[in-house]
Amino acid sequence: MRNLKVTLAYDGADLHGWQVQPGLPTVQGLLAEAIFRVIGEQVLPQGSGRTDAGVHALAQVASFAIASSIPAANLAKALNDLLPAAVRVANVEPVPDDFHARKSAHAKTYRYRMYRGAVCPPFLSRYVYHHPFPLDEAGMIEAASLMVGEHDFTSFAAVDRERNLPVGQAASHVRTIFGSEWRRDSDEMVYSVRGNGFLHHMVRNLVGTFLLVGKGTLTPCDLLRILEARDRSAAGATAPACGLYLVSVEY
Amino acid sequence: MRNLKVTLAYDGADLHGWQVQPGLPTVQGLLAEAIFRVIGEQVLPQGSGRTDAGVHALAQVASFAIASSIPAANLAKALNDLLPAAVRVANVEPVPDDFHARKSAHAKTYRYRMYRGAVCPPFLSRYVYHHPFPLDEAGMIEAASLMVGEHDFTSFAAVDRERNLPVGQAASHVRTIFGSEWRRDSDEMVYSVRGNGFLHHMVRNLVGTFLLVGKGTLTPCDLLRILEARDRSAAGATAPACGLYLVSVEY
Repeated sequence: MRNLKVTLAYDGADLHGWQVQPGLPTVQGLLAEAIFRVIGEQVLPQGSGRTDAGVHALAQVASFAIASSIPAANLAKALNDLLPAAVRVANVEPVPDDFHARKSAHAKTYRYRMYRGAVCPPFLSRYVYHHPFPLDEAGMIEAASLMVGEHDFTSFAAVDRERNLPVGQAASHVRTIFGSEWRRDSDEMVYSVRGNGFLHHMVRNLVGTFLLVGKGTLTPCDLLRILEARDRSAAGATAPACGLYLVSVEY
Repeated sequence: MRNLKVTLAYDGADLHGWQVQPGLPTVQGLLAEAIFRVIGEQVLPQGSGRTDAGVHALAQVASFAIASSIPAANLAKALNDLLPAAVRVANVEPVPDDFHARKSAHAKTYRYRMYRGAVCPPFLSRYVYHHPFPLDEAGMIEAASLMVGEHDFTSFAAVDRERNLPVGQAASHVRTIFGSEWRRDSDEMVYSVRGNGFLHHMVRNLVGTFLLVGKGTLTPCDLLRILEARDRSAAGATAPACGLYLVSVEY
């Protein structure tokens, strides 16, 4: 068996997220189906994490082992011939047997795009969260910076499921955030966050809480109190999926 | 009655074109429905031209007359609250009674985007025609330049329907092209064409014929012979709708 690493981008707007679901188009399901059609082997590619319905990826990573000796570049081309245009394989490469897209990841970067103009261009509406109302953007920038470091992110984790648990921290909600910043990019406010792991809904819950700072409901320092609370109900609502991108995974 | 001019942008990928069709989402139908919901008047907005299914618009123009005295800016905002995010009203303004979005137009500009990279990013696939194969781009640029001027474009008109006929030229296929050029824009080849009017499918048929020049099947000068032939079968195939944009309409 050969272990392979595949890097892929997808427009999540019409997809039902990463994880395979019977009868619904998901990235994992479409990829598994395409692999089967190319080499006749049934495999379930393991992603670096399970993006939700509507979430996009610039460079998601998945791994799987196959018996076929098909050259990696040929497999990449054949997969793109079979996958819908919304899912594109950028690269396939052989990796050591112990490589696992999720367990081997050292860091991941997410981005959240918020469109601030009055009228959202129709060509952006699938790819940004449109929020044209007044916001204290300086307060949001300050609040985001307070997330850097090692924290227990229980308050920002979905309460329904436990996912994306890093090795050796199976029961922990502690994660280390290396960078966390909002910046203005023309008509958009863009949030970038890089960390050693993320809990389910964590980025969208952070964005939803930063929005409460933007609206003046919370002060930036309230974010520290919310971390301390270790209580999902202390934080803001989950921001819409359409603005979120998995940007990269580091190994 | 007040005559109004509305300027709107749309992502045509999931729409069935401009013209109203029962049970299908069309720009004209969605706009008429939204107008009815706002002011309770049944009107059929007249577009500058009927874009086909899948064709996009950066600034389509439509006109219609209403009895309501609703301020134009309020109407624009109310329409955007009701229209799907794929259709956005940029502006509504009062115009003289004799203004008609199609009949009053002096010139229109279209753009066609062709993606030339090997793998089309999933976020572009709805908005460009992906053509990664070798093309003689210099030949295409030369062929496009030969279209400038007054010509009979019968060879580039859809044979099924007669549409967008300018005033006083009801039976004519003669149009004047003011500008016609391909340019490289990073991984894209972009065709821009500005003229006093366009026949049905004319831009897509021009692009499909330029592609035959790109592939070496035709020389640039063959375009002049094809114009002379006044025969649709002399020209190339209709290029896919997804790459086409109505850019602007001049009055």
